Amino acid sequence: MELTNIETILNDALIHSSKYIDDGNVATYIPELAKADKNLLGASIVTIEGKRYHVGDWHQEFTIQSISKTISLIFALHNLGPEIVFNKVGMEPSGDPFNSIIKLETKKYPSNPYINAGAIAVAGLISERYSFEDYLKLVRLFCGRNSIEVDENVYMSESKTGMLNRSLAYMMNSSGVLEADVEKTLDFYFKMCSVKVNSNDLANYAAILANDGLDLKSGDRLIDNSILKIVKSLMLTCGMYDGSGEFAIRVGMPAKSGVGGGILAFAENKLGICVFGPALDSQGNSIGGYHMLEYLSKELGLHYFSGK
Amino acid sequence: MELTNIETILNDALIHSSKYIDDGNVATYIPELAKADKNLLGASIVTIEGKRYHVGDWHQEFTIQSISKTISLIFALHNLGPEIVFNKVGMEPSGDPFNSIIKLETKKYPSNPYINAGAIAVAGLISERYSFEDYLKLVRLFCGRNSIEVDENVYMSESKTGMLNRSLAYMMNSSGVLEADVEKTLDFYFKMCSVKVNSNDLANYAAILANDGLDLKSGDRLIDNSILKIVKSLMLTCGMYDGSGEFAIRVGMPAKSGVGGGILAFAENKLGICVFGPALDSQGNSIGGYHMLEYLSKELGLHYFSGK
Amino acid sequence: MELTNIETILNDALIHSSKYIDDGNVATYIPELAKADKNLLGASIVTIEGKRYHVGDWHQEFTIQSISKTISLIFALHNLGPEIVFNKVGMEPSGDPFNSIIKLETKKYPSNPYINAGAIAVAGLISERYSFEDYLKLVRLFCGRNSIEVDENVYMSESKTGMLNRSLAYMMNSSGVLEADVEKTLDFYFKMCSVKVNSNDLANYAAILANDGLDLKSGDRLIDNSILKIVKSLMLTCGMYDGSGEFAIRVGMPAKSGVGGGILAFAENKLGICVFGPALDSQGNSIGGYHMLEYLSKELGLHYFSGK
Amino acid sequence: MELTNIETILNDALIHSSKYIDDGNVATYIPELAKADKNLLGASIVTIEGKRYHVGDWHQEFTIQSISKTISLIFALHNLGPEIVFNKVGMEPSGDPFNSIIKLETKKYPSNPYINAGAIAVAGLISERYSFEDYLKLVRLFCGRNSIEVDENVYMSESKTGMLNRSLAYMMNSSGVLEADVEKTLDFYFKMCSVKVNSNDLANYAAILANDGLDLKSGDRLIDNSILKIVKSLMLTCGMYDGSGEFAIRVGMPAKSGVGGGILAFAENKLGICVFGPALDSQGNSIGGYHMLEYLSKELGLHYFSGK
Repeated sequence: MELTNIETILNDALIHSSKYIDDGNVATYIPELAKADKNLLGASIVTIEGKRYHVGDWHQEFTIQSISKTISLIFALHNLGPEIVFNKVGMEPSGDPFNSIIKLETKKYPSNPYINAGAIAVAGLISERYSFEDYLKLVRLFCGRNSIEVDENVYMSESKTGMLNRSLAYMMNSSGVLEADVEKTLDFYFKMCSVKVNSNDLANYAAILANDGLDLKSGDRLIDNSILKIVKSLMLTCGMYDGSGEFAIRVGMPAKSGVGGGILAFAENKLGICVFGPALDSQGNSIGGYHMLEYLSKELGLHYFSGK
Repeated sequence: MELTNIETILNDALIHSSKYIDDGNVATYIPELAKADKNLLGASIVTIEGKRYHVGDWHQEFTIQSISKTISLIFALHNLGPEIVFNKVGMEPSGDPFNSIIKLETKKYPSNPYINAGAIAVAGLISERYSFEDYLKLVRLFCGRNSIEVDENVYMSESKTGMLNRSLAYMMNSSGVLEADVEKTLDFYFKMCSVKVNSNDLANYAAILANDGLDLKSGDRLIDNSILKIVKSLMLTCGMYDGSGEFAIRVGMPAKSGVGGGILAFAENKLGICVFGPALDSQGNSIGGYHMLEYLSKELGLHYFSGK
Repeated sequence: MELTNIETILNDALIHSSKYIDDGNVATYIPELAKADKNLLGASIVTIEGKRYHVGDWHQEFTIQSISKTISLIFALHNLGPEIVFNKVGMEPSGDPFNSIIKLETKKYPSNPYINAGAIAVAGLISERYSFEDYLKLVRLFCGRNSIEVDENVYMSESKTGMLNRSLAYMMNSSGVLEADVEKTLDFYFKMCSVKVNSNDLANYAAILANDGLDLKSGDRLIDNSILKIVKSLMLTCGMYDGSGEFAIRVGMPAKSGVGGGILAFAENKLGICVFGPALDSQGNSIGGYHMLEYLSKELGLHYFSGK
Repeated sequence: MELTNIETILNDALIHSSKYIDDGNVATYIPELAKADKNLLGASIVTIEGKRYHVGDWHQEFTIQSISKTISLIFALHNLGPEIVFNKVGMEPSGDPFNSIIKLETKKYPSNPYINAGAIAVAGLISERYSFEDYLKLVRLFCGRNSIEVDENVYMSESKTGMLNRSLAYMMNSSGVLEADVEKTLDFYFKMCSVKVNSNDLANYAAILANDGLDLKSGDRLIDNSILKIVKSLMLTCGMYDGSGEFAIRVGMPAKSGVGGGILAFAENKLGICVFGPALDSQGNSIGGYHMLEYLSKELGLHYFSGK
């Protein structure tokens, strides 16, 4: 792939995408997130060779939110193994909104680890055996920045207002899916969602995913391929909430979005991307970010079915 | 990719997979399908260079069933355009069984074109404007065999017993999703599912999908890339009924299965595969075929996240 | 009970209720019903001693619609027995709209005989063994009028447009709940709903229900008490679609409504009532009729918990 | 009504019903309830004239559980009025199990005050403004016994293990249905369910309901008729969980059951009954108690459609 023109295309993508911001809104269900500036927009690209490209508000920190679900899944698969994890959570798209409780009653187990219920179940498995610091080390390793921390204001805000997540957690506790202490699990989950990153951090992590889990410099294996097959395949089928199917068609990259405004995506064996913009569409995905990814996919030929 | 050993690996795959047949059962809800010999098992591979490899009962004809949903979608997208098609059907995994009616009441539109309701909606769009012969020509073109015909016994059997599909169709007719004549639509749908193919036919079609829609010999474009992005991405997210997520992890190829026992899959820019075995697992996928694909994916490195 | 003032109260009820008509609308899903004059309003009361009182458009004929479900249930219970009937249909409020299909997938059997699916299941049991004429004789007997007939225009209109009922019927046929021929069953069902009555006819039938199933003149038993316990108790819990709970509070009489604009109600051991007005509320109940019944219940002390 | 033979019939009812005990099981989801002796069976009848009849283990104390939902509803309607109450909860049978969460997502408001979610919503309204002692006074008044207290062991057990109720409460808090503090609301709810009574206590309350809310001795009005219409009508349509429809047919009395083994029922203007037996059927109703009520209804002619 010809990457010489990435910088130009990134700039064009920013201009193209910024006009969609007006159609979106910042997340309001967590009061602290509602304070975000909806006009922010930025992106970072990191190639598997380690080259970095940035545009717009790429340096702006935001909370990682649901993108963390991919890292906690890696943590759990690595430390506990797939058998323990998939004894508590499924592998299928849910067909319902990310915070839906219905299938917990009709099917008991959460459909997959990227909806809230599934990620809380995984957080329960981790928090019983590991400290949040253990987990945070992995985030820092993947992002390549040791100064990454929790945003205490967002964490407090989520903890105080996350009643629907509490409902999901108590439901799973009631049915035996979540065996860990509910409030301790939620504390881990809210902290995990409140980690502050910028788009360069997540593009670094995305590039490691694109590079088969190998460190970009040393080539050391950071993530087993068997774990990557799970984490990345689930990004294909369930990464963009209940808009995953349309995203697969229009953008064609494995991706995971968060209501903090970030979307992580990657093109296998090529590069990792993180776009950031707090204005969200009706499904909770960054509206500017989505359009940037669609533009980049087309102009850089990143769709997995790009053709000849 | 080194393909010199495909033949050996195909043979090993057959031996490996045949031991799972006992755990499956032939489809019984269509009386004519219940007559199938559950011990049949075979497969064909066609590379994008046109090389062909076969094993087991590859010459055995079976009905294409739901695999036809990908061809009717191509037909509709080509002849009517995506706007008309996606005005009647969504692009998302449904999270429910392939024949579920619940979301037609709660959301009105079928979730995607690969569940029964969605495929019937697409069949309605086609059957209003085109003859079944028009459609059959496309099947023959993709399969590379002009003698392909409808299995009249299966067609009659489906038509006589397909009451749940009737229920889906009348529900959509009632809500305005299906504007075409219901019985005429169902007639098209039942015929389309009853087309008789063998695994070589569908591997040929799969290879064209892998080859960006270009004819394997002439290089002529048979399918637009914009259509392929839709048809192939939906195979990723919705191709294996409500087992699509797990299949993406374990096998890692875009695929579409049918209750006749066939599964079509492909590795982009490499090759197309069709496996065939009438014994089905609890989700309606060929149990032997599934294991063959998993084996082939691993041994030939066909998973889209195979790693380095 | 003092009944000397029924006539006055009936007149007051008409005046009181007519002002709600503007808030309602005639049924539109059956084209022939959409032609009704929404300003019609009338009622009849027949006491168990056989006294008759009328007001407004009581002589106006309308189609019986869902009120017929109580008569077909009596017919089925009398001729086939409760075991055969309740092998196919439940006894519980559904919690869903009268035409919902969801529980047919999740629970298989229709919740009760007064939702459409349940009434179609009962119609299937009858139509396999009895002619429509047999059933019509019972309607005439209960209404005390031999000239009662099917409205052919409504019947043709329902038959041509009743796609959602077709969907329900094919779903039940598919699952084995409806073993009879689907189209023959629907023909019986559509005819049964299209029987033309006036409010005097149905008030006569209601009075027989109030009179423990005994003929008002001869005292001959027309309906067994064991059947009445079923038919009348189901009117309490499921008679007013998904507004049955509120109706029980506000009006407090066993009742059954139909989208033709009729509502039948009775006060045990006292009298039968039929109100009629084609303007319906959002739940499909006659809006003027509902208010008449509430007024009559209060002024005549007909609520089963009227107090002292 | 001839009541001279009540004593004999009560004794026969006990003998008849005790043989069904083996088919039931004590509630196990609250550990403390699982300790109950499943062979206990007893009943009390109190006529509106104040005559009392007892049989079997009528003196045995048990926790009131869901029967309390009728008293908390009376308390809320009396002190807050119907507008405030029915702004938070519906009046319709839910068609789902008593502890289901699904409709809270699809419809937001709990279907009625007798399912757990609805009763928790009502408990929230009360606990914001009144102390538990205020409520307990009403229970003592209706039961005619001042020594009624909370069973601390059951209360602690429910509070510690009631995770599904927590899930329901947090879900409603998240959607704005439950505005009160969640844990304080649940504390009130768990206490309210843990009040210890015997069948004589509840038969006294049932007789007051049968007597139009008037004190049995003084004739003083204890409950407004407008409130009784609501509380009693809801017992008809929703009192026996998702077995309310069948109970209305087979027994034909307004009733409310609790998983502690009690069922309260009454015959309007005649008498109140409480049966007690901890062995429950699959819907959570006392299996021996249900059969006693069916027997008593038949032998004493208590069905509201008893006939002539």
